Amino acid sequence: MPYQVPRGTRDLMPEQALVLEDVLEKVRLVFRKYGYEPVETPAFESLEVLEKKSGEELKKQIFRVGEGEKLGLRFDLTVPLARLVASNSSLPKPFKRYHIARVWRHEEPQKGRFREFYQADVDVVGAAGMEADAEVLTCAKEALEMIGVEVKRVRVNNRKMLDALFAKLGLKAGATALFRALDKLDKQGRQAVEAELKRLGLGAGDVEMLMRMVMAGGSNEAKLSLVEKEFPNEGAAETRELLKLLQEYGVKADLDLSLVRGLDYYTGPVYEISGSGDVGSIAAGGRYDKLIELYGSKPTPATGISLGIERIMEVLKAKGKKALTRAYVAAAKDEYRMNAREIAMKLRAAGIAAQLDLMGRNLKKQLEHANALGIPYAVIVGEREIKEKKLTLRDMKGGGERMLTLEQVVKELS
Amino acid sequence: MPYQVPRGTRDLMPEQALVLEDVLEKVRLVFRKYGYEPVETPAFESLEVLEKKSGEELKKQIFRVGEGEKLGLRFDLTVPLARLVASNSSLPKPFKRYHIARVWRHEEPQKGRFREFYQADVDVVGAAGMEADAEVLTCAKEALEMIGVEVKRVRVNNRKMLDALFAKLGLKAGATALFRALDKLDKQGRQAVEAELKRLGLGAGDVEMLMRMVMAGGSNEAKLSLVEKEFPNEGAAETRELLKLLQEYGVKADLDLSLVRGLDYYTGPVYEISGSGDVGSIAAGGRYDKLIELYGSKPTPATGISLGIERIMEVLKAKGKKALTRAYVAAAKDEYRMNAREIAMKLRAAGIAAQLDLMGRNLKKQLEHANALGIPYAVIVGEREIKEKKLTLRDMKGGGERMLTLEQVVKELS
Repeated sequence: MPYQVPRGTRDLMPEQALVLEDVLEKVRLVFRKYGYEPVETPAFESLEVLEKKSGEELKKQIFRVGEGEKLGLRFDLTVPLARLVASNSSLPKPFKRYHIARVWRHEEPQKGRFREFYQADVDVVGAAGMEADAEVLTCAKEALEMIGVEVKRVRVNNRKMLDALFAKLGLKAGATALFRALDKLDKQGRQAVEAELKRLGLGAGDVEMLMRMVMAGGSNEAKLSLVEKEFPNEGAAETRELLKLLQEYGVKADLDLSLVRGLDYYTGPVYEISGSGDVGSIAAGGRYDKLIELYGSKPTPATGISLGIERIMEVLKAKGKKALTRAYVAAAKDEYRMNAREIAMKLRAAGIAAQLDLMGRNLKKQLEHANALGIPYAVIVGEREIKEKKLTLRDMKGGGERMLTLEQVVKELS
Repeated sequence: MPYQVPRGTRDLMPEQALVLEDVLEKVRLVFRKYGYEPVETPAFESLEVLEKKSGEELKKQIFRVGEGEKLGLRFDLTVPLARLVASNSSLPKPFKRYHIARVWRHEEPQKGRFREFYQADVDVVGAAGMEADAEVLTCAKEALEMIGVEVKRVRVNNRKMLDALFAKLGLKAGATALFRALDKLDKQGRQAVEAELKRLGLGAGDVEMLMRMVMAGGSNEAKLSLVEKEFPNEGAAETRELLKLLQEYGVKADLDLSLVRGLDYYTGPVYEISGSGDVGSIAAGGRYDKLIELYGSKPTPATGISLGIERIMEVLKAKGKKALTRAYVAAAKDEYRMNAREIAMKLRAAGIAAQLDLMGRNLKKQLEHANALGIPYAVIVGEREIKEKKLTLRDMKGGGERMLTLEQVVKELS
């Protein structure tokens, strides 16, 4: 009866942790190339900060921390950003930050959905125009490509267009409820959404018109023309601008009038990137021009996107582990252990990851262990090697052996 | 009245977060060179796991998580390792892992001591000999040097030697209480420790003998000879072996018979690396051969060391920020913004971190912003540049300007 990790959480053993580190390193590299800089914030915040804009659903998912201290683990990286920006009013704008860290949500665990997971966010704070939205989306797509994830589809929409549509149809239900209903289209299908809309009090005619609009087909241009003709609004102009900028950046994007994204705080463009297979959305975000002022700042527009690291790792799962260690330095007999240590240190000094026996094992057992770890080369030191001032380099997969000088070994393994 | 971070925690703004990322990257690089591989574990564990070997003091410092779920934030990375190893009994031994992550302790915040902080640990699980201890210590020292921290002193001791000393003196107080008392020697001085020992019931003669022993001066060899003569024990032989191995590795270490390290679970060698200035210990660890079996495993020796990242950052504080972004691509007029975007993308494709205006600013304001961010170069595109198929490269510090082709700019900034 071994001890378990808490429900909805997991350990990453080296094989997976190496994939994670590799993914995060590549993400960081791309974010930095676009001029974003990191911040770190505490894992927990005051409940007041968290609940200010969590929405009812997320509010229930906050893990409380401490006893009577009114703290909770953060459920995303956007709320901490808003709090941080609002309390550092002198930051030069735009403030372009990335934040890669864990967040926690007390929800029902499902396949691929955990209570503890990583987000990797880029956000632009202070810039109102679509150039910021186009940049974060382009940057996220490049990060995904750098990781080696196939980007299947980039979808965009605009909350202002949906608001205008709701107004045009004279719908009585609140926008938030309508957004939530529409948000289920992808997962639950058209019928479920229609039932939900009727439950919200919409008549059959309204439901039919709404669904016909948001599910309109055709090219981006055809949809935009329809929107501009039927219910002209600022969101349509923003979308036209965003699509033009994305095209310039070489990002193929589809306008999807049914795309909502669940979070209550979006105010304009929303976007979602999906990968291949059944993992669904691997990155998503949008503009939230009203959030930061809730934390006491003057009105401050902002937009950003978040990469879902667990889903990305799910996609990458198939790819095998590459052993980090290049060389296992083996001593043929105990009297050569000191030589083995010296050689290992010289390899490390040359930047070659090396390890050696720490268990007092004989040569055979040492090589078995190196093999079990998948280390590609063994460097063996024994009587003959010392005499000839050389080393035996064994290819652990091919099985070949050669006598080489240390210098040659370094060259071979670099 | 801006919203505050919770007591004892802090935000890291980009300047500091960049230092942190740089430190962690270097640590990771060195750990990997020695053949250690990463794991990740949940931020919180069941209280049962945490309290199994926290000792009374740490137990009080656990941040509770959730409501009625008996979870707590981890207070170190050793307990999660023990739990993980015990529940994965088929792991090849030795299991050499690194773990770089935050831990949380609900204690009184002080200068340089936070309730949330990073640890960077290397541990060897399954190896009983001093070779493992010598390796983790050597590896930690190299990581510190790689970061650029001055290593002032490496001190080692052995709990078995202290146990033997207590036995020889016939001391009646429990070893844990004596360890705790001695542990305060560095911070509170000899008088305070002597008072504490007396409070524990030791007679004046015992206190004097104990202090004379643990504060014995002279070379490592002199101290070891004294120990071996007065109270021969296995710890002395281990220390002799450890010091020999460290010497081989080029690590100068001092035997300090008063070194204890607070944690209850150490069973043999303990070590501590101190940096310059008044930050004290920047890395510390020791052997804990009895810990893992508490989690249901068969007896499994283990040893490891932990780098204190916050203290390391404290030492590095003086060093200035290097701007990540190399180039700010500025459009002389609005009509060249598209060109600016294209140039930025080409620079990024060449691996050069670049940013551009997202605020609709004029050229002057763009350059002012680049300057405020400390970006070293501006790449300006305007009428003349388009006509001549060149770009203006401005050195933002030196102030010089040159007209160059994009290719030349890339070469210049790479």
